[in-house]
Amino acid sequence: MADLKSTFLKVYSVLKSELLEDPAFEWTHDSRQWVERMLEYNVPGGKLNRGLSVIDSYKLLKEGKELTEDEIFLASALGWCIEWLQAYFLVLDDIMDNSHTRRGQPCWFRVPNVGMIAVNDGVLLRNHIPRILRKHFRDKPYYVELLDLFNEVEFQTASGQMIDLITTLEGAKDLSKYNLSVHRRIVQYKTAYYSFYLSVACALLISGENLDNHIDVKNILVEMGVYFQVQDDYLDCFGDPEKIGKIGTDIEDFKCSWLVVKALELSSEEQKKVLYENYGKSNPANVANVKALYKELDLQGVFAEFESKSYEKLTASIEAHPSKAVQAVLKSFLGKIYKRQK
Amino acid sequence: MADLKSTFLKVYSVLKSELLEDPAFEWTHDSRQWVERMLEYNVPGGKLNRGLSVIDSYKLLKEGKELTEDEIFLASALGWCIEWLQAYFLVLDDIMDNSHTRRGQPCWFRVPNVGMIAVNDGVLLRNHIPRILRKHFRDKPYYVELLDLFNEVEFQTASGQMIDLITTLEGAKDLSKYNLSVHRRIVQYKTAYYSFYLSVACALLISGENLDNHIDVKNILVEMGVYFQVQDDYLDCFGDPEKIGKIGTDIEDFKCSWLVVKALELSSEEQKKVLYENYGKSNPANVANVKALYKELDLQGVFAEFESKSYEKLTASIEAHPSKAVQAVLKSFLGKIYKRQK
Repeated sequence: MADLKSTFLKVYSVLKSELLEDPAFEWTHDSRQWVERMLEYNVPGGKLNRGLSVIDSYKLLKEGKELTEDEIFLASALGWCIEWLQAYFLVLDDIMDNSHTRRGQPCWFRVPNVGMIAVNDGVLLRNHIPRILRKHFRDKPYYVELLDLFNEVEFQTASGQMIDLITTLEGAKDLSKYNLSVHRRIVQYKTAYYSFYLSVACALLISGENLDNHIDVKNILVEMGVYFQVQDDYLDCFGDPEKIGKIGTDIEDFKCSWLVVKALELSSEEQKKVLYENYGKSNPANVANVKALYKELDLQGVFAEFESKSYEKLTASIEAHPSKAVQAVLKSFLGKIYKRQK
Repeated sequence: MADLKSTFLKVYSVLKSELLEDPAFEWTHDSRQWVERMLEYNVPGGKLNRGLSVIDSYKLLKEGKELTEDEIFLASALGWCIEWLQAYFLVLDDIMDNSHTRRGQPCWFRVPNVGMIAVNDGVLLRNHIPRILRKHFRDKPYYVELLDLFNEVEFQTASGQMIDLITTLEGAKDLSKYNLSVHRRIVQYKTAYYSFYLSVACALLISGENLDNHIDVKNILVEMGVYFQVQDDYLDCFGDPEKIGKIGTDIEDFKCSWLVVKALELSSEEQKKVLYENYGKSNPANVANVKALYKELDLQGVFAEFESKSYEKLTASIEAHPSKAVQAVLKSFLGKIYKRQK
């Protein structure tokens, strides 16, 4: 595992060097230095789960057959494309949310002399993906499918981000706009496709599979992504800040969180009033009132129930899949997130 | 011509409707309304020169053979992809430059309730391009080339934007960092590829041409793009604000404009001091001092000389091209911009 990660990081260095010598642009010392610093700051510092999953899934799809060095490189390169995509979203999301820290350091746009240049840096990160794909996959029979896949998933993620942003605008006027189907739509598009489906889809493509034959895999992974985001919403309020690496602010930010949706669903008229009066305010007293209500409604118990039901349903869908190798891929994903604390 | 433009605008309506029904996303009333308003505000309101050029060029490449309705639609769709690309850049550039107006209306991010959501709207605009390409070109033999072309040109434009941004940071510390080769690199990447080369490249692809055989066409169009941007820099200071639709602020913004580069080149030590002391300041007195120096150095005459020299050189390169049809395309471009006042 430590070994896999170090192999993966070596591929990052190769890709970075290639990008900094991309012949489609006339580099100068200053521009190369800027991009290198920007990449180092934003790309490799996360948990790398999404990227590493491409290699893991590919191995499982090959059912124990050893991967060649070349195969590992290609799976890693696709894994890094997902990490680049993630970096692009995070750099821009932090600007939109006016966030302060990310992965334990100031958000990129808050670094001195960066500021709004970060918008263009986000765009550059996004542009690196087709550069990597073209350099390493141009001659593969699945090159077009790869381009289409990344384009479709990016479109879905940006659309999910849009509904999140406009729903938060609307919700701030009227909390009753929040409900489970709104929540589900946001997380499905904003998170599930790129965080869960994309890695497996990449692994399937390099294994020579046609994605049209794997709609069921997509559906299961999207369900898993929704479950993952519900955990995220739960941990934002009830998780240990030390473990999750940030202090949650969903209540202050008027987020359409699974918790507020469940609270609205379970509240009496009296309790609803508490939500309407306190949700979305940054004053600690308001936040405390919301948290107290969540406890009163036993959202921790409601979540535990949701978690075990989700696990059961996902396991049943996975076991219904005809391929043992695909089952192994999906089970490995589920195993990594079930009852996670961070 | 009026007819061509109205045909072109009809295609916009078709593409917009298709995007608002894109099956890759589960639309709601609110999200559809948001995207429609965002498209209307940002996409069709420009001069549409880049988009219309695809149809013009395609006609010239077909040497008088009438285009079918289908061919016109496809050329228009590619033209709109360039307009979408332009809209994406402009929405984000206006945020980065903290601009106020664009095409005679407030910048999109300044519209009430939009704000930083505009970052994601820029991303959505960009994402619409591969959606359009996939819907209408998926089965064409040149589909991959089209994806690669748009990806490469976007990469070059974002890289040009990057060097513009970091050069302005550096220049603000030390004006002597500005010179003709820095200026050329910025405008070549930031403007020339997407504003000049891209339209013709699209027309060549739908005509069945291989772009690798047209490096000379690319080089001529890049030269033309550089010439176009020098005109832009000139008009920013010496143009009629009524005609160009905005009041130039290159001096205030410390831009690496062709004018300041020429001024640095032609100045005595004394005059350089004037530049160093006044360039990049928003006080009208400072701006007036810079403009007075530009006049003292006769930059209007220097520009007129540059303009006629550029015209001669470009004409000579065009006439050296073996294909009369390609010559016609290039001459049409040159004719549209030579001695332009807006």
